[in-house]
Amino acid sequence: MLYAVIMAGGSGTRFWPAGRKCKPKQLLKILGEKTMIRATVDRLRPCVHVENIMVVANVLHYDGIRLELPELADSMIVCEPYARNTAPCIALAAYKLAGINPNALMAVLPADHLIGPETRFRELLNAAATLASSQNSLITFGILPDKPETGYGYIEIGEKVYSQDGISAHRATKFVEKPDRRTAQFYLDSGNFLWNSGMFVFSVSAIIEAFDRHLPEVSSVIKEIGPFLNSHEESEAIRRAYQKVAGISVDYGIMERADNVLVIPADLDWNDVGSWGSLDSVWGRDENGHVSRGELISLLSKRCVVDSGDKLVALIGVEDLVVVDTPDALLICRKDMAQEVRNLQKLLMDHGRDDLL
Amino acid sequence: MLYAVIMAGGSGTRFWPAGRKCKPKQLLKILGEKTMIRATVDRLRPCVHVENIMVVANVLHYDGIRLELPELADSMIVCEPYARNTAPCIALAAYKLAGINPNALMAVLPADHLIGPETRFRELLNAAATLASSQNSLITFGILPDKPETGYGYIEIGEKVYSQDGISAHRATKFVEKPDRRTAQFYLDSGNFLWNSGMFVFSVSAIIEAFDRHLPEVSSVIKEIGPFLNSHEESEAIRRAYQKVAGISVDYGIMERADNVLVIPADLDWNDVGSWGSLDSVWGRDENGHVSRGELISLLSKRCVVDSGDKLVALIGVEDLVVVDTPDALLICRKDMAQEVRNLQKLLMDHGRDDLL
Repeated sequence: MLYAVIMAGGSGTRFWPAGRKCKPKQLLKILGEKTMIRATVDRLRPCVHVENIMVVANVLHYDGIRLELPELADSMIVCEPYARNTAPCIALAAYKLAGINPNALMAVLPADHLIGPETRFRELLNAAATLASSQNSLITFGILPDKPETGYGYIEIGEKVYSQDGISAHRATKFVEKPDRRTAQFYLDSGNFLWNSGMFVFSVSAIIEAFDRHLPEVSSVIKEIGPFLNSHEESEAIRRAYQKVAGISVDYGIMERADNVLVIPADLDWNDVGSWGSLDSVWGRDENGHVSRGELISLLSKRCVVDSGDKLVALIGVEDLVVVDTPDALLICRKDMAQEVRNLQKLLMDHGRDDLL
Repeated sequence: MLYAVIMAGGSGTRFWPAGRKCKPKQLLKILGEKTMIRATVDRLRPCVHVENIMVVANVLHYDGIRLELPELADSMIVCEPYARNTAPCIALAAYKLAGINPNALMAVLPADHLIGPETRFRELLNAAATLASSQNSLITFGILPDKPETGYGYIEIGEKVYSQDGISAHRATKFVEKPDRRTAQFYLDSGNFLWNSGMFVFSVSAIIEAFDRHLPEVSSVIKEIGPFLNSHEESEAIRRAYQKVAGISVDYGIMERADNVLVIPADLDWNDVGSWGSLDSVWGRDENGHVSRGELISLLSKRCVVDSGDKLVALIGVEDLVVVDTPDALLICRKDMAQEVRNLQKLLMDHGRDDLL
C-alpha cells in the first residue's frame, strides 16, 4: 500500500512579502490558482488514496494547512514544534506509518515544488513504488538537467539495475552539494549527473533500517515517540523528542551513506521555486520577457518578475527586477539578488516591524 | 489692495499614480502634511486677506478645491471648462477683479510650486505689490539659479531700476525657453539669467492694457464675459468664451512682447515639482540618498524616490528608481525617465483602464 508523506516544513522567508511566518511558500499561490500544497496533493490523488496522504508541517502552519486540505484526516497532519531539517521529519513519518501498516510504502515529497507533466510524474511514482516493494532499496528521483544550474544539488548515477517501459533505475554513486558554475557545466556535459529532486520512495522497513544503521542518534530519539503515536499524547511526545533531536538532512544523514540507494532518472519539468528570481523560468514570459501575475504596463522595460495581486503595475525604464506587492509591504529587488530577500527578516526586526515577518 | 490669483489648472499626469484626472498635483500632499494648494494659500494668508484670494481651476477639480479651501468665497473659485494655458486664465481673473475693484493689484501664483522660506517670499511679494502700485509695470520674480537646470525657462535681466531693503528690480530683456545643458551652464555662469518662476504681480489696469495691446484676440473674447462676471450667468459666459479663445501662455503672449516688464531677483528655495524625479532635490535624503515618504528598508540600494503611504517598502540592490504606490496602481520608474510618466495615460487607455487615469 502506497502512502505519501508531504514535507511542508518550509518557512518561505525567501518569498517575503507574499510569504510570511504564518504563510510559507507551500501556502502561497505562487503559480496560478492553487496553493503549492494543494497542487502537490492534487497531483498525488490519482495514485494515492486520500486517507493515505500525510502532511508533516511546522505547528505554526497547522491552521493554514488544515483549511487548505480539509479532506485529510486530522491524524494525518503531523506537527513539528521546531524545524529540524528532513531526517527527523522522515523518521517520524516512517514510525508513524509503521504503526498503521508495517508493510507501508512511503513516497516522500516536498510540498512546494513545481512538477509536470502530472501523468508522467505518477508513472514514475508508481514504478518507484513497485521497485521499492520488491527490494530493500531507497529510491530517489533525479531530474534530467537542461542547464548548468548552480542552485540545486546533483546525484551521480552508476550501473543501471532496472529498466522497464521507458523507466530505469541506477545505483546512486554520489550525492553532491550545489556546485559552482564550472562544476555544474561539467556535470551537465558528463551526462552522469542528475538534479537531486528531494523526492524519495521506500518501504517503511527499509528506511527505518537505514536510520538505525546510519543515523542511530536520530532513530533512537524518534523511536521514543513510538508508543504515543496515533494517540492523544502524540504531540507532547513529538515535542519532547524534537527538543533533543539534531537537525540534519536525509541526503547528508542517509542517502550519502547508504549503499542501497537507487536513482530513477525523471524526465520532468521540475523547479524547487527557491526564490522570486527562479520564477522567471516558470511563469510564461510576455513579449518584453516579463513574467507577471496581475496587470502590467511596460514602457522601455524588460525581464521583470511581478506579483501584484489585483493591482496594475506600470514599469518605466527598468530591467531584471522582482516586484512583489501586498497590502502592507512592497518588495523591489534586483532579480539576481533575490536570495537576499531572506536577509530582510533581521532588518524588519531591527525596524520593530515583527508584524511583517 | 492686493489680491492673489492662484492658477490651479494643472492636470498632474506626470504624478500618476498618486495624481489622477480628478486629483492633480495641486491636490496632492507631495510634500509633507499639506496639499500643494493648501500650502500655497497658507503661504499667502499673512499678507493677503482671505476674501481677496481667488483660485482659477479646471471644472473637474472644483469639488476637490472646494473641500480643500473651505474658507474661500464661492465666487472666488473660478472654473475653466477647458485648459487654455495661462494667458486666458490671467485675463479672466483680471477682468473679474476689475469688476470687484478697479484699483486691484493682483499677484498671480501657480498652485503647485514649492517655495521657501515663506517669510522671504512674503517680503518679496509685498515689495512687488508696492512697486506695481506706483508704476504701470508687469512684475515677475526670477529665481537665483544654483545649477544649470534644463527643466526651467530663464529670464535675462538688464538695467536695475529699483533697489530698496535688499530687494531690487531690473528690466527683463529676454524670456527664453528651457535651454539645453550647455546653454543652461552659460546662463548660470553669466549671472544675468534667472529662472522664470511663473509668478507675477501687476495692477489689473496694467495687465488689461497689456492684453489689449499684445493679445487683443484673447482680450476681446474674455472681455465678452465682462457683463456676466460675478453673476449666476458667469460660468455659461466663461464656457462660451473658452470655446473660442486660443490657448497661449502669458510668457509667450505678453511677457516676451511687453516693454514694461520688471524682474525681481528672488533668493528663494523654489521648485516647480515638474515630475517625481524632481523630488529628489526637495525631500530630505537619508543616509543612502533615498528620499521617501513611508517606511523604507534599504539593502544595497541608493538614491530612490519612494512614496508609499503607510506601506513598508523594501529595496534590494536598486538605484535611482521612483516608486509610487497607491491602492490600485503601482509605478516603478527610472528616475531620469520620470518625464515619461505622462505617456502612461495613452497606455492606460489602450489597456481599457480609463478608471486609473
